[in-house]
Amino acid sequence: MKILILAASAQRQSVNKRLAQSIELLLRARGFADIERPDFKSFTMPMYDGDLEMESGVPAAARDLADHVQKVDAVIICTPEYNGSIPGSLKNALDWVSRLSPHPLIGKPVLMTGASPGVLGSIRSLWHSRVPFEALGAFVFPEMFGLGLATDAFDADGQLKDPKRQQQLAQLCEKFLAFAART
Amino acid sequence: MKILILAASAQRQSVNKRLAQSIELLLRARGFADIERPDFKSFTMPMYDGDLEMESGVPAAARDLADHVQKVDAVIICTPEYNGSIPGSLKNALDWVSRLSPHPLIGKPVLMTGASPGVLGSIRSLWHSRVPFEALGAFVFPEMFGLGLATDAFDADGQLKDPKRQQQLAQLCEKFLAFAART
Amino acid sequence: MKILILAASAQRQSVNKRLAQSIELLLRARGFADIERPDFKSFTMPMYDGDLEMESGVPAAARDLADHVQKVDAVIICTPEYNGSIPGSLKNALDWVSRLSPHPLIGKPVLMTGASPGVLGSIRSLWHSRVPFEALGAFVFPEMFGLGLATDAFDADGQLKDPKRQQQLAQLCEKFLAFAART
Amino acid sequence: MKILILAASAQRQSVNKRLAQSIELLLRARGFADIERPDFKSFTMPMYDGDLEMESGVPAAARDLADHVQKVDAVIICTPEYNGSIPGSLKNALDWVSRLSPHPLIGKPVLMTGASPGVLGSIRSLWHSRVPFEALGAFVFPEMFGLGLATDAFDADGQLKDPKRQQQLAQLCEKFLAFAART
Repeated sequence: MKILILAASAQRQSVNKRLAQSIELLLRARGFADIERPDFKSFTMPMYDGDLEMESGVPAAARDLADHVQKVDAVIICTPEYNGSIPGSLKNALDWVSRLSPHPLIGKPVLMTGASPGVLGSIRSLWHSRVPFEALGAFVFPEMFGLGLATDAFDADGQLKDPKRQQQLAQLCEKFLAFAART
Repeated sequence: MKILILAASAQRQSVNKRLAQSIELLLRARGFADIERPDFKSFTMPMYDGDLEMESGVPAAARDLADHVQKVDAVIICTPEYNGSIPGSLKNALDWVSRLSPHPLIGKPVLMTGASPGVLGSIRSLWHSRVPFEALGAFVFPEMFGLGLATDAFDADGQLKDPKRQQQLAQLCEKFLAFAART
Repeated sequence: MKILILAASAQRQSVNKRLAQSIELLLRARGFADIERPDFKSFTMPMYDGDLEMESGVPAAARDLADHVQKVDAVIICTPEYNGSIPGSLKNALDWVSRLSPHPLIGKPVLMTGASPGVLGSIRSLWHSRVPFEALGAFVFPEMFGLGLATDAFDADGQLKDPKRQQQLAQLCEKFLAFAART
Repeated sequence: MKILILAASAQRQSVNKRLAQSIELLLRARGFADIERPDFKSFTMPMYDGDLEMESGVPAAARDLADHVQKVDAVIICTPEYNGSIPGSLKNALDWVSRLSPHPLIGKPVLMTGASPGVLGSIRSLWHSRVPFEALGAFVFPEMFGLGLATDAFDADGQLKDPKRQQQLAQLCEKFLAFAART
């Protein structure tokens, strides 16, 4: 099973990048070897503009992201929360990807996770970010994982310090990947 | 009363630009003279990136948008719907503007309108787009205006062809501006 | 495959009951024979109240609804829109059902459809109603079906008059049931 | 200024009732004397049913709730979160109240607060519950107050133990009532 883990933040020190890394670690420890975890920075693209699309098509970075999604059996998103909702940068990437025909999110299993420095753990973003994925036809797993107080949540190896949370995350990933295998 | 009308689309032929124009026309006909209707294209900015912010601050285009918001007493948004929700480009603009301190949306009266070629009239975007404005502290007017089948909705003068819809829009704008005057 | 179709309206003349009936008809025509379509009126229950639950447990009507859900492989909801969102009566039924342990919505495939007299076809309710189903762990199919102008949408046999919409609905049901068979 | 504080829970030991009481205390301490805080239990009503409405009209309990809303200048809601969203009982009450013409929520200033035993403090309910209030035309204050870990949050006098949270809540109420006075 091929898995894409995407932290929707371009920041080097992003807690969502650390969450993405911790998910990769726990999946590898469970025998999943075919995992990609590209840097969101490599998907830098302009704001969507229909005229730009007419003139020069969907940007290479959006095509590249779509290729990554296309090739995998399951997508795990680690999303920040900006202003109570989905990051504009993630939504903009979806807006460009959705212009491809066919676009690769139709029927794609997606797990939403997110981390934030505060106690709410990106929960408003998780619920807001589901919507465009579902509107695009992705099978978004019902359960999600929000990590609050994320700045201090990881140990030196990049795992979650709290063994209970680590176990929750591992079990959720296993349930999700079993779902992805069936769909 | 100073009013900003912002069509959140960079496309030249955008139905939301036409909706924005029709709102300007009806407001001018009712004696409101101090209206700005800048081109969203002039607010082209990169996708939000915390590192970029650290290195070079909030982009000039986002500062310019914030200045436009700061100077007015009321903001009218005309928003497309992309993938069942807020355009990534509009959300990205909000994400940058929100990094200014103080940012100009706190306590700002905002009216949400939107146009779409289909029958739903951007309704899912309207409800989704309210959220970050409210999270940022704006007073978003409860009633909204969604214009379906917008491609053929305007006459040669740029007004809504349907006199009933035109009247609805005019009354909504009047109610909103009365609200904006009070708050 | 056992299927439950639930119109979330107690009204005799409900357009959602008619939509539920039309779905039953098209499913039967495609060879699905094991279909239940109970009257929502039979699930009349009090407003959720934790003290009432302590004193007399989950009401029989909620247990009965849970039994219906438990026994089937797929659930199709036909929901009205009240005040831009989920009917309180449907949400209240979910609130009671969620008190059972285990409750029967975990991992249950659910298709959301809805009808309304206006043009928006219950679309705001569909998106709002997904949320508690997903919070309860149901696999809500990403695509949904909203039927606008529903009062005149059905012919004397109870089918959708518009052959295009009828075909859309049939194809959506087939895609959903294929999904339900896999999960 | 007349104020209605409504904890949308019928349970005697509800943390939302305690939050409602703490809000009453801090408002009285600031000189607001005309405050009603009725028991949600007194608004027990059947699930909405259009046939029932035709036969016997809007139930007395819903009319009574509407009267309470009608008489005041500002409404403060303290809402639980059930299954990631608005309690069915609260939504059902709104559905009945919305059948009155005119209904009393149009233009009514509303502050959303909520308490929950977990860390998220009812935040998903707050955002979900705004929607029907706004669809009904209420002026819902943008900022909200979610109280997590609410079971142990109150002292013997019914105030919030944490002075910082207590001050936040007091300042929010003051800002909201200033807004209500203007609108």
